[in-house]
Amino acid sequence: MAHGVSLIGVSGFAGGELVRLLAAHPDVSLEAVAGATSAGSRLGEVHPWLAGTSLGEREVVAPDAVGTTEVAILALPHAESATLAPALLERGARVIDLSGAFRLDAAAYPEWYGFEHPQPAWTAKAVYGLPERGRDRIAGAELVANPGCFATGAVLALAPVVDAGAIDPRAVLVDGKTGVSGAGRAASETTSLAASAESVRPYRAPRHQHTPEIERALSVDGREVGVTFVPHLVPAVRGVLVTCYAPLAAAAGTQDLTSLLSDAYAGERFVRVLGPGDMVDTKRVRGTNVVELQAFVDERTSTAVVVAALDNLVKGAAGQAVQNLNLVLGIDETTSLPTMAVVP
Amino acid sequence: MAHGVSLIGVSGFAGGELVRLLAAHPDVSLEAVAGATSAGSRLGEVHPWLAGTSLGEREVVAPDAVGTTEVAILALPHAESATLAPALLERGARVIDLSGAFRLDAAAYPEWYGFEHPQPAWTAKAVYGLPERGRDRIAGAELVANPGCFATGAVLALAPVVDAGAIDPRAVLVDGKTGVSGAGRAASETTSLAASAESVRPYRAPRHQHTPEIERALSVDGREVGVTFVPHLVPAVRGVLVTCYAPLAAAAGTQDLTSLLSDAYAGERFVRVLGPGDMVDTKRVRGTNVVELQAFVDERTSTAVVVAALDNLVKGAAGQAVQNLNLVLGIDETTSLPTMAVVP
Amino acid sequence: MAHGVSLIGVSGFAGGELVRLLAAHPDVSLEAVAGATSAGSRLGEVHPWLAGTSLGEREVVAPDAVGTTEVAILALPHAESATLAPALLERGARVIDLSGAFRLDAAAYPEWYGFEHPQPAWTAKAVYGLPERGRDRIAGAELVANPGCFATGAVLALAPVVDAGAIDPRAVLVDGKTGVSGAGRAASETTSLAASAESVRPYRAPRHQHTPEIERALSVDGREVGVTFVPHLVPAVRGVLVTCYAPLAAAAGTQDLTSLLSDAYAGERFVRVLGPGDMVDTKRVRGTNVVELQAFVDERTSTAVVVAALDNLVKGAAGQAVQNLNLVLGIDETTSLPTMAVVP
Amino acid sequence: MAHGVSLIGVSGFAGGELVRLLAAHPDVSLEAVAGATSAGSRLGEVHPWLAGTSLGEREVVAPDAVGTTEVAILALPHAESATLAPALLERGARVIDLSGAFRLDAAAYPEWYGFEHPQPAWTAKAVYGLPERGRDRIAGAELVANPGCFATGAVLALAPVVDAGAIDPRAVLVDGKTGVSGAGRAASETTSLAASAESVRPYRAPRHQHTPEIERALSVDGREVGVTFVPHLVPAVRGVLVTCYAPLAAAAGTQDLTSLLSDAYAGERFVRVLGPGDMVDTKRVRGTNVVELQAFVDERTSTAVVVAALDNLVKGAAGQAVQNLNLVLGIDETTSLPTMAVVP
Repeated sequence: MAHGVSLIGVSGFAGGELVRLLAAHPDVSLEAVAGATSAGSRLGEVHPWLAGTSLGEREVVAPDAVGTTEVAILALPHAESATLAPALLERGARVIDLSGAFRLDAAAYPEWYGFEHPQPAWTAKAVYGLPERGRDRIAGAELVANPGCFATGAVLALAPVVDAGAIDPRAVLVDGKTGVSGAGRAASETTSLAASAESVRPYRAPRHQHTPEIERALSVDGREVGVTFVPHLVPAVRGVLVTCYAPLAAAAGTQDLTSLLSDAYAGERFVRVLGPGDMVDTKRVRGTNVVELQAFVDERTSTAVVVAALDNLVKGAAGQAVQNLNLVLGIDETTSLPTMAVVP
Repeated sequence: MAHGVSLIGVSGFAGGELVRLLAAHPDVSLEAVAGATSAGSRLGEVHPWLAGTSLGEREVVAPDAVGTTEVAILALPHAESATLAPALLERGARVIDLSGAFRLDAAAYPEWYGFEHPQPAWTAKAVYGLPERGRDRIAGAELVANPGCFATGAVLALAPVVDAGAIDPRAVLVDGKTGVSGAGRAASETTSLAASAESVRPYRAPRHQHTPEIERALSVDGREVGVTFVPHLVPAVRGVLVTCYAPLAAAAGTQDLTSLLSDAYAGERFVRVLGPGDMVDTKRVRGTNVVELQAFVDERTSTAVVVAALDNLVKGAAGQAVQNLNLVLGIDETTSLPTMAVVP
Repeated sequence: MAHGVSLIGVSGFAGGELVRLLAAHPDVSLEAVAGATSAGSRLGEVHPWLAGTSLGEREVVAPDAVGTTEVAILALPHAESATLAPALLERGARVIDLSGAFRLDAAAYPEWYGFEHPQPAWTAKAVYGLPERGRDRIAGAELVANPGCFATGAVLALAPVVDAGAIDPRAVLVDGKTGVSGAGRAASETTSLAASAESVRPYRAPRHQHTPEIERALSVDGREVGVTFVPHLVPAVRGVLVTCYAPLAAAAGTQDLTSLLSDAYAGERFVRVLGPGDMVDTKRVRGTNVVELQAFVDERTSTAVVVAALDNLVKGAAGQAVQNLNLVLGIDETTSLPTMAVVP
Repeated sequence: MAHGVSLIGVSGFAGGELVRLLAAHPDVSLEAVAGATSAGSRLGEVHPWLAGTSLGEREVVAPDAVGTTEVAILALPHAESATLAPALLERGARVIDLSGAFRLDAAAYPEWYGFEHPQPAWTAKAVYGLPERGRDRIAGAELVANPGCFATGAVLALAPVVDAGAIDPRAVLVDGKTGVSGAGRAASETTSLAASAESVRPYRAPRHQHTPEIERALSVDGREVGVTFVPHLVPAVRGVLVTCYAPLAAAAGTQDLTSLLSDAYAGERFVRVLGPGDMVDTKRVRGTNVVELQAFVDERTSTAVVVAALDNLVKGAAGQAVQNLNLVLGIDETTSLPTMAVVP
């Protein structure tokens, strides 16, 4: 029997991607699609690529018109989620939240998100939704904090080498590159084709809010972690590539780090570890829930480098949310999640 | 009176850019344009954007048909330059070489370029052609080794902070992003639009040949320098952005580093230092000889970050060669070098 | 029970797309994957996006190593198909051929394809594989000539207005725009990112081989049809947009033509007719088997305009081949064919 | 002595391009730079690529703060120009207007521009500013109506063949393709990178306001002209390609039409006629004031095809305005106008 799922915050890119994935999901009944600005429109007006399908005829309702639902998936601005998710939880729904509202300790919100968290108790109860780093806790969670796109890549890249003590986690550098869809769907001069073509630009450095998220996710057992993170915009629509650097803690070679990754992710359907000689490529994971990982060592400088490539809107947002949904519902974790890219 | 200049290796992207810049140069007479594969063709066949101009009618000659010339500019494969440049020097020409053949100590060539240097004595006599780091020696040089594109950005970004002792130069990380023109003009599946669109990829890491070039250029007075360098291809045609990271050697803030850069490059026509709040952008220097620089400090991790943006074919190749040519000829260093980009 | 299908010509873009679609096909067993140049490689070497999947481990065999198979799908150069398809047919396979080798009368090949057809009898037996224009004949065909990408768009756009006598079919103009994947996967300077970015170019005009294909497909009952066709390359990877113009044969408005299209394609799963106000968009059909159509009339000049947008590699090649395969196999025509694009 | 020129409407793409061209103009003194929304800002804030130059420090003033000036160049919305240009003319300035406000007969404005023209008398006095079709009248004009980008290409392509009676001018079809900069600088979802990448779309068809402009410019001596025009957006920043089709009026071949073009534009510095075998390319004219033209005949259908490629912001806007300025000032028409593109 299908599980009832409601989607709140449908008009953005992640919202659209959720519609695409949930529409093909055999175990889910899409109960409500809701959005503040798009309420009253048909879904095909909000996402023209749905026009002419039956989904396109669905009416978008206001967020507060969402009734009882088994699971609510929220793709909303951080501050809105911080308030709405607890309200839904109190009405009995389980919640998967794509914003950053429940990824950090409550105390960190003023500094990193610019607001005092209205529901600090829920930040403590939220489970960080990175299945490859703890799917059991997600399965039982009331509230899942779906990770950020850069954080997904950086944590999956670094966790095995940090856990193994292979690198010094206090001196981690993460250089991120993202397509412009990461900046959202709202029209802006910055993400216009005219401004973006032939443009490579750092942004929001060194204060991007995924920095403490990466640190927290790597800080298992009180381990001290320090991350410097600089994101960059590149002229692509989708795709995140994170290149992570850290000093080796002990002598190790490329093959050693590659083995750490391979072992850590053995059996994972959505993690692909490449060997030396290959190179990760965001194009190869476009539209899929896959992360490509690759490690190498610069022996001249005793530096470990681990690179991750993912689709920011899928494994970095909507796809991971569906993966978490599958865990929460107790069904096959891979249901409705593509692994093969449309290339070229 | 015009100075006679010959251009050898005209068919690639740097060769084409040299033609564009020298065609507008008031003090230069372009004596020969030469190329191995394009010999016998008209320049307008080699570079169709020249068709219909008088330059387009010029015949490309074979490299060994270049006679005596005041200055020869070489845009050739490394190993070819290593042999041809000395031959031209012995015939009395001054040489500006765009390849990597004279940028390193002779001993480094087997490891980094894959060949034994045929003319080790000339590597010692060559002057590294980064005018902002020593224009006097360039002015008097017989042989100028024009810097690599990534190295130009990284050295201009880092030299002032290394010189001032602000960072630890033994733990420098350079994350490079380049458009595909850096891979040259020859057709390859890798640089096709089909493979490059929506693709962000590391390549040739951690063994890119600009690594020792950056180290050497920063190793003033025997200073120990260690650089880990990972280049990436992004879906752009032109543009290099290098993001350089290093531990602070002493407490310093963003403004301190910015001042170091501003002071170091005061009066430089081709270096633009941005303050906090701005962000460098490869689009803004496209087609120009300008480098944009920007520094900031992540005080949480005591990490210095300096970013440089440049056009790999201009300040990273042909434009810097013309800048060096102007120095060699004793004329205004800025002659025929654009500073204003065609935006958008 | 699964039907045995062999795929010959696996290394190009259409071959890769066929692998992607057939891999997800529930009723097909992929018996052999063959290719001349890639024989002996694993499929994951030929298409790196398959690396790490079980399909990626499949070995590519030589075309002549393909044994008996229920259906063979050929994605080969025209002249190779012209010879190989009949050989397979004679061995009892049914054949779906993606090349142009069986789309025209045998007599037309010297002029339009540059070779004398080696198997003229089979050109007469081949069925043109445009399901929306005659799926019954395809279902019973031994040899299906899968249409060209531009022809698919132009014929679907024009056939209803030609059939209804709404336009003068002797004065049809087709202006085509295509992404560079239409030029194939082989590396070429023309389709490099460096040459293609910011470039819009006509090509092979007015002698493109889809011209007689469009004319023939519209020439029902000996109707005289004359088409002028000019294709253009635009800086995209996928996507074909054809804008078809013709003089109105009788007074008609935008709504009249729109109704002709809507009526003609009522019930078609892969044709979406847009009303006035909307505009077709290749992005909206990317990766799908859908064609978007739209008609309008310029009443000032009594000109009908019908526009079609499709994915050249899906509805214009591999997807349509699978649609034809489904018809040939007598299964649901829409099996394994995506209709929802990955946007943005 | 320098001529005083004021620029009104500086914040858009055409305004920026005018700044770039006028900054390098040896005979022009840029008296005022004005803009409604940007008044009070420094020019370097409006166009960040000017930051750090002396021009970047210039303050933008309000349009009504522009005093007496020898020539005013206006890059404003149509309806604003329609009012402001006459006001400036009455104060003694000569005016070059980049909007469509003076390109048509006054009676056409309600239908094509959606407003009643406030100054119908000035539409009759304005001279259409296409130098290659009548530079003498421009030189003496008080008010020059700078042509639209599509119209520039279509008129230059078609006029010689219309004038020679080679085609039937009542059945002209113009298929236009443009990069997104043609839609202006204002942020919009339509021209975002996310919406534009991999997208080819018709727009505003068949009611684009360049249609009557093309017809009027070709209607010499009361000749009857009928144009159907469909513009399309392609994923490029700059560049317009127009493909013009018309029935031949008498037997003629590709070489005949090519000769008509060559003869008509013999001696023109900004028109490049390509022969058969070449193909026009917007990349080759990017950033320049050049139009590339090419003609061919489809003898099967007796159809003439003439294609034009230009940079919509240069020959299609700011460059042509400077060309007209040079004529108005009586100086060398080619001053400060680039003819060599930055390729790739």
